[in-house]
Amino acid sequence: MEIKRYLQERKGLIDDFIETYISNSNIYPEALRESMAYSLTAKGKRIRPILCFAAYEACGGKKLKSILPFACAIEFIHTYSLIHDDLPAMDNDDFRRGKPTNHKVFGEAIAILAGDALLTEAFYLLSSHSNISEPNSSEIDISSDTLVRIISELAYAIGAKGMVAGQSLDILSEGKEGDIETLASIHKKKTGALITASVKMGGLLANCGIDYLKSLTRYGENIGLAFQIVDDILNVEGNSQRLGKSVGSDEKKQKLTYPKLYGIEESKRKAKELISEAIDSLSSFDQRADPLRGIALYLLEREK
Amino acid sequence: MEIKRYLQERKGLIDDFIETYISNSNIYPEALRESMAYSLTAKGKRIRPILCFAAYEACGGKKLKSILPFACAIEFIHTYSLIHDDLPAMDNDDFRRGKPTNHKVFGEAIAILAGDALLTEAFYLLSSHSNISEPNSSEIDISSDTLVRIISELAYAIGAKGMVAGQSLDILSEGKEGDIETLASIHKKKTGALITASVKMGGLLANCGIDYLKSLTRYGENIGLAFQIVDDILNVEGNSQRLGKSVGSDEKKQKLTYPKLYGIEESKRKAKELISEAIDSLSSFDQRADPLRGIALYLLEREK
Repeated sequence: MEIKRYLQERKGLIDDFIETYISNSNIYPEALRESMAYSLTAKGKRIRPILCFAAYEACGGKKLKSILPFACAIEFIHTYSLIHDDLPAMDNDDFRRGKPTNHKVFGEAIAILAGDALLTEAFYLLSSHSNISEPNSSEIDISSDTLVRIISELAYAIGAKGMVAGQSLDILSEGKEGDIETLASIHKKKTGALITASVKMGGLLANCGIDYLKSLTRYGENIGLAFQIVDDILNVEGNSQRLGKSVGSDEKKQKLTYPKLYGIEESKRKAKELISEAIDSLSSFDQRADPLRGIALYLLEREK
Repeated sequence: MEIKRYLQERKGLIDDFIETYISNSNIYPEALRESMAYSLTAKGKRIRPILCFAAYEACGGKKLKSILPFACAIEFIHTYSLIHDDLPAMDNDDFRRGKPTNHKVFGEAIAILAGDALLTEAFYLLSSHSNISEPNSSEIDISSDTLVRIISELAYAIGAKGMVAGQSLDILSEGKEGDIETLASIHKKKTGALITASVKMGGLLANCGIDYLKSLTRYGENIGLAFQIVDDILNVEGNSQRLGKSVGSDEKKQKLTYPKLYGIEESKRKAKELISEAIDSLSSFDQRADPLRGIALYLLEREK
């Protein structure tokens, strides 16, 4: 299947699940529900849950609908991180995905709480679907052992040694001279950790073996870093309308980025090298890993 | 055992675990670790993890050290909620437990991130200790099924239908005329849900039966509401030095409280009634539930 069609189809499943989930959620007060829904349905690329799907399928998994709650939990986490990152006390951004940021619409208090709720709801999704029936198929059984493992891996990836540490480093290094080790550490933690966890989760949900899990981890680490380098490049030379957020903001905020330390051309070369390494990591997989390979190339060439 | 000694001994276990955990955590950047440690070690009453212990012991549980990570995860969650609640965009409080609030010391960005990290770390604690050995005792085995159940119950209690919803309602109802249903809903969600979940978690960790779990739930709901009413009363007539936070702040912020709707005397009567109901819920338990009974009375008479 062509990669664009693959991305579109998987995104469709994810958008539908999230739409249904948040519409039927009975969350009260309504402002909290609206604030969560506003950012959840802001038409992101859904690249992280799609990676979870692609890794699951690469390992022979076939029950896509049954893993939707787990894949979507990742998107809940990603959404929470965007809402909190955009806050005035953090990156102070006014636009995201072509719309005013959450706190601009709902106020800071509700934005903070919506982020907290999305993070928490992710763990609820992960722990409340251990035995899901898929229409027209036999019952799927994801063991509690697997769930506990997934929850542990994910919590580690996004916590005080992962994503939150990366965001803290990012904030603290603004306006300071930084070296390549600090930059790599920020990128690996802030962006790479959740992307790697998404890929590993797909493998774990398909009960893949340890060697395949190692390959998926290498793949995830490489595309994770490449993804952030491409993000940095787009922040310099991208199209703000297409991106849905302002261009040049990294420079204005004196962020530590790859283009700043290496220049644009060397950054592009580095991203290309990482994508190539990511694809190499999949050598032991058959054609069922083609979507993972296609996503790696797509991430390099994306314009938003 | 006298209740004060019980509280002191259990609090000692919890303080030690948290101190060791955060000192050995290797969290980087240091500002994030310090911010987390600052609020975690701010000498709270530790009432929620103690309730988890007391419920566990009431159901025959004896391996206190082995359930420490789970009990302390509750304190991590409570601490995160305090840090976020104190933020300028939320309750805008300057003092907590006799010290400047987290954002006053570390700035808003790191305070938000420390809260996020503590919430996430709680789920890491819950999912990473499924097989803990206790010194001088046989291996304890908490099944993955039990862990998934606990994670699900806790995530529900503190998420968009529990604690976060309560805090949202609380913020949104400031300065407005409110009725008793709204007030009860705020208190049940904002304070009651986590307290009830703490008690239930103790029962689940001891593999208690469904009837005992129901009794523990009723106990938790009653003391949870009583706890918050007493909090409201202390905010009117407490001693700010003993409380470690300012008195009269609810009135200044035009918060919806029991004393505001019912007056002080009727609020005291209501708290007493709830505590009495909580103790009645434990009628099927033997003397091993005495700490739970003692805690209920302690919560009514506390001065901070």
